[in-house]
Amino acid sequence: MNQKPNNLSTYYAGKNVLITGGLGFIGSNLARQLVQWDAKVTLVDSLIPEYGGNRRNIAGLEDMLRVSLTDVRDHEKLPGLVAGQDYLFNLAGQTSHMDSMTDPETDLEINCRAQLAILEACRQHNPAIRIVFASTRQLYGRPESLPVAETHPLRPVDVNGINKQAGESFHLLYSKVHDIRSTVLRLTNTIGPRMRVKDARQTFVGVWIRALVEGKPFEVWDGAQLRDFTYVDDAVSAFLLAATNDGAVGEIFNLGGPPPVTLLELAEHLVALHPGGSFKLKHFPADRKKIDIGDYYADYGLIQDRLGWRPEVTLNQALEKTLAYYREEWPHYV
Amino acid sequence: MNQKPNNLSTYYAGKNVLITGGLGFIGSNLARQLVQWDAKVTLVDSLIPEYGGNRRNIAGLEDMLRVSLTDVRDHEKLPGLVAGQDYLFNLAGQTSHMDSMTDPETDLEINCRAQLAILEACRQHNPAIRIVFASTRQLYGRPESLPVAETHPLRPVDVNGINKQAGESFHLLYSKVHDIRSTVLRLTNTIGPRMRVKDARQTFVGVWIRALVEGKPFEVWDGAQLRDFTYVDDAVSAFLLAATNDGAVGEIFNLGGPPPVTLLELAEHLVALHPGGSFKLKHFPADRKKIDIGDYYADYGLIQDRLGWRPEVTLNQALEKTLAYYREEWPHYV
Repeated sequence: MNQKPNNLSTYYAGKNVLITGGLGFIGSNLARQLVQWDAKVTLVDSLIPEYGGNRRNIAGLEDMLRVSLTDVRDHEKLPGLVAGQDYLFNLAGQTSHMDSMTDPETDLEINCRAQLAILEACRQHNPAIRIVFASTRQLYGRPESLPVAETHPLRPVDVNGINKQAGESFHLLYSKVHDIRSTVLRLTNTIGPRMRVKDARQTFVGVWIRALVEGKPFEVWDGAQLRDFTYVDDAVSAFLLAATNDGAVGEIFNLGGPPPVTLLELAEHLVALHPGGSFKLKHFPADRKKIDIGDYYADYGLIQDRLGWRPEVTLNQALEKTLAYYREEWPHYV
Repeated sequence: MNQKPNNLSTYYAGKNVLITGGLGFIGSNLARQLVQWDAKVTLVDSLIPEYGGNRRNIAGLEDMLRVSLTDVRDHEKLPGLVAGQDYLFNLAGQTSHMDSMTDPETDLEINCRAQLAILEACRQHNPAIRIVFASTRQLYGRPESLPVAETHPLRPVDVNGINKQAGESFHLLYSKVHDIRSTVLRLTNTIGPRMRVKDARQTFVGVWIRALVEGKPFEVWDGAQLRDFTYVDDAVSAFLLAATNDGAVGEIFNLGGPPPVTLLELAEHLVALHPGGSFKLKHFPADRKKIDIGDYYADYGLIQDRLGWRPEVTLNQALEKTLAYYREEWPHYV
């Protein structure tokens, strides 16, 4: 794992921690760190095949945490899950932008309605809980200027962005009006071990990695778009820090990464790290173009100033670690 | 009725027009004008007692339009309602800010989820429909500066504002991505005949008017807040104009009113118009204070420039007409 402030573990030892989306990419990496710190971890996941949950993500941890195979849309189950928890890392979500356009109501149920239900469960059954919510840069839509700070106007370009915005707003409102202490992190592309590689539903980098380890060329669309990438251990650090800092209550923080690269540069970088790897440059498909946001990279100065967080892992390290994981673990993820 | 551009009636004669929330305050006033112009009007309303619908609102029109007692949360009914319609005035909504805090899930079902379902029904069954959606100044939250233009940041202060923001965003997204031609109007306080006076769920002015005609003192909280008021005929004009103007597709317009007044000034104005009227000045109740937005009045320059709309009715005229209506009609509204 990444370096963490030494004293952070003391916040979590012996504490009850709930992670929604806990069998997913970031959730399971969070769980790994928390178990190491002797937290009592409960993972909530629906294991819907199209989403990020995968039992392999907790390989070796099975006896050190509890898994509840619950869909956050089952609102009546939520009170029992949140009761008695000290921390909630709220990461359950539908992440596919395209799926949100073809099946908008499912996206709404998970990213909007279930979030309100989770907060209501906390308000009624555990108002002392401390929440960190995983939001997304998608809320900014097409950036007006770069890098994008938290004050950038919000204008989501797809149903997913609209519902995530509502989910985020509910967290801030409940923090302000009902004193349910919540922090919002707006994530950019996060990469690393345990991400979904079966398809592009979580990140396009997933299908690139899959193609590489399967020895096939991957497709790069356009290639000129600038993007930033957070390595998953750095994202995990941000969640762990945010939950323990009183100054983070009611706040929104961007996460970011090492200096941004174009998708073409990323593709070339990956190919250089994987002997025999190759890609094809293609035009943007029309249905994706409509909801694409162009260039994006985050200004993460606010969380750096306020919580002392910054990305520690270089892009080269992130890609190497990710490739190494999937060269080994590939059969469990496709 | 108010003066309307002479040619506007030609857009609607013989056309099929659907109004959700059609037995409500603005919906029924819209229906009155449309019936006069020989449109084929269908009103959708759930007649939930806490909401704005009231059969009295269409007194005298019963044989000149169709009423469907449908709840917009019955998603399977929506395709049949939108099919074949030329225009949709989408006004169904839960309007109470306080109710949205005590029963947030119902607010979400109506103001957010049902809106997506209405748009999906249009996309699948009537993509050529022309929609005008009733949004609200509540999205702006507590204004940074006055008057408030459409570019003001959005930061809703209650669950109602969050859900209305999502509902609005869905309309704009479907307009942009799916070519479902929609216009959003952000309404401020609208007053006039057929508004809810039973309680403050639609507007606080309702309970003031009720108290006046019942010969009781009404309560003014704080009294210093500035507000603007649109007379309902002016609001109706804005809806009718917006739906017929291609330049309004995909746009958001504030409505506004005559120069703003403080609530204390409004109270004094009302009392002066109603012999024997009186009010008591009180402190703001704590639970309302948390979600109050302070001073607000709209900059309606954009709709004035683009569609030629402006409020025609003075505040004095608006209050006189409203009082006259409820002196007569009071028994049907309490």
